[in-house]
Amino acid sequence: MISTKKQLPLGRLYLREVEGYVPGAQPCADAIKLNTNENPFPPSPKVMAALAGIPPRALQRYPDPLANEFRETVARLHRLDRDQVIATNGGDELLRLALTTFVDPGQSVGVVTPSYGVYSVMSAIHQAHLSCVPLTAEWGLAPDTAVRWNSDGAPLALITNPHAPSGALFSLATIDRLAAEFQGVLLIDEAYIDFVDPDLKHDATPLIAKHSNVVLLRTLSKGYGLAGLRLAYGLGQTCLIRPMLTKTKDSYNVDGVAQALGKAAILDQQYASASWKHVRQERIRLTRGLEDLRFQVAPTQTNFILTSPISDVCLDAVSLYQELQKHGIYVRWFDDDRLEGSLRISIGNIDENNALLSCIGKLIAS
Amino acid sequence: MISTKKQLPLGRLYLREVEGYVPGAQPCADAIKLNTNENPFPPSPKVMAALAGIPPRALQRYPDPLANEFRETVARLHRLDRDQVIATNGGDELLRLALTTFVDPGQSVGVVTPSYGVYSVMSAIHQAHLSCVPLTAEWGLAPDTAVRWNSDGAPLALITNPHAPSGALFSLATIDRLAAEFQGVLLIDEAYIDFVDPDLKHDATPLIAKHSNVVLLRTLSKGYGLAGLRLAYGLGQTCLIRPMLTKTKDSYNVDGVAQALGKAAILDQQYASASWKHVRQERIRLTRGLEDLRFQVAPTQTNFILTSPISDVCLDAVSLYQELQKHGIYVRWFDDDRLEGSLRISIGNIDENNALLSCIGKLIAS
Repeated sequence: MISTKKQLPLGRLYLREVEGYVPGAQPCADAIKLNTNENPFPPSPKVMAALAGIPPRALQRYPDPLANEFRETVARLHRLDRDQVIATNGGDELLRLALTTFVDPGQSVGVVTPSYGVYSVMSAIHQAHLSCVPLTAEWGLAPDTAVRWNSDGAPLALITNPHAPSGALFSLATIDRLAAEFQGVLLIDEAYIDFVDPDLKHDATPLIAKHSNVVLLRTLSKGYGLAGLRLAYGLGQTCLIRPMLTKTKDSYNVDGVAQALGKAAILDQQYASASWKHVRQERIRLTRGLEDLRFQVAPTQTNFILTSPISDVCLDAVSLYQELQKHGIYVRWFDDDRLEGSLRISIGNIDENNALLSCIGKLIAS
Repeated sequence: MISTKKQLPLGRLYLREVEGYVPGAQPCADAIKLNTNENPFPPSPKVMAALAGIPPRALQRYPDPLANEFRETVARLHRLDRDQVIATNGGDELLRLALTTFVDPGQSVGVVTPSYGVYSVMSAIHQAHLSCVPLTAEWGLAPDTAVRWNSDGAPLALITNPHAPSGALFSLATIDRLAAEFQGVLLIDEAYIDFVDPDLKHDATPLIAKHSNVVLLRTLSKGYGLAGLRLAYGLGQTCLIRPMLTKTKDSYNVDGVAQALGKAAILDQQYASASWKHVRQERIRLTRGLEDLRFQVAPTQTNFILTSPISDVCLDAVSLYQELQKHGIYVRWFDDDRLEGSLRISIGNIDENNALLSCIGKLIAS
């Protein structure tokens, strides 16, 4: 057999400078896990029943490559056409497909800062630059956001609403204006939309009919307690959805189990709504509890809060993060200029939130 | 609200010329489905037991982003290190990651022709050119294959072994020489490797230690009856696997259900081997049956056969494909110069194969 020593280094040169995304830790089962924004409730019993009902044949055969039944179910929920829906292997896949479909390497991608770390990592992998527009001091959208993205020639912008990691909700009027002013595709990552107070009547789906450049990202990871399943979907006009559905996605991107369980989850709106209501109630209680401990809490419409100790609290954010972890409570701290004084804490169930408040109380008293 | 008419067409210009991949049809449940090379057996009962044992928490929480337990199980099977294994959302994801990780847009990707249609579609999406080397008349590798790929500067080549759609197996010596001569990363897509006659003692895993440019692709879709689950893995030296594992893959690319079921499937080698043995037996029987009906059958080491009617048979391949479909039997026909006279037929269970032979017999007699 011949064996020639390879002379060439393998792998794309530019990738050596690219840092991968580092997800939040997945600690052991008995830890209190408030670091990756999962739903504090398990999925609906109807989802578990669908799981128990998966026949061997559904595993043996290739899944529907277009996930038609699931997309039909989603379309009915949002009063859209099935052709306006794409199912993806988690929200990350939709973000990647948007880059692949709408951005040439070397072009810019509009983002606000700070935002979800995956946006910059995926853009770097795609060899796209970022067109960064910082949020205002109160986590609002700068009025010239679209103008700046346009002047950088960005064919795509990625924005989380409600925003992460602040929890702030950009109003419908703000998003509507942004979509009108921005010349590229505006992907609104609504990963946390299910937790918005229904009294606000915030619903961005009518923007799809109004703007030919809007894609909404929804995920079942948070609102439906299905982070382990990897299922999300995109909504938009057919002209935006079709190239992702028929060209750029992998042929069988969503497995048969996810299609079946996702359908069951979407159909049980009553169960999901109850979990959202619980999160909103606990959000208020946790906010008050932290304020009582002399923490500042940013107004939030999500299932997490961004909070920072007021200056006379004896522990800074990073120390608190480390101390909580020693006590088996995992929260998220970001090594970022604007965020290093804060912690992002997922809203857990009542017991988890009580344990968190009690542990913080003891740590700052000691 | 402001609404400005968008002036710019959205979407990358080059994509308008790219055709998406069209998977084989997924007909209704009572059809005889011999068109997409699934295993004729359902997955192991131990896989179904693992499915029944999935706790709600496994759906609620994010999965292990690195699929460590599954990768550990795979590594033990192949006597490799866990760091030499990556788990992917079907084999397609590994193909895409290889393109993303090793090929700059504008570069070439080595392939042989004909081959799996996804190779050319994914390369086109990545804006890579193809460096095509036709197989010999007997479905063998042309001796100058690596030389031609090298002269086109291909940093990656994709080759299926056993080959699809011919079913031919390239010998270990041939692959070893190809890996030595080729200067880029050689991805050997072993989707059908489980069906190779064990008497041939064909095992390419030792090439991983020998060549720093070899990646093997394995899938659970065929050998383990899990096409619906979307689970595959790549094997290679750590220097090739690491950038895909830590940089270019989506953070949580394989869901928790697939990780658990995949582990159960890999651990039940006894069940899987029995299905491979059945396929090999039926492969012989189906070949003889077709030869009796005056069909030519290419020698195959896979779970499908490539067959063409001998000239005195009254129906040509495409007519036969259409007639079989009218009788509820789905096989694959390719609109390709070299393949248009042939049908690719997956090996089914005994009843399905009997139905196929009987139907062909009647069609050509009528």
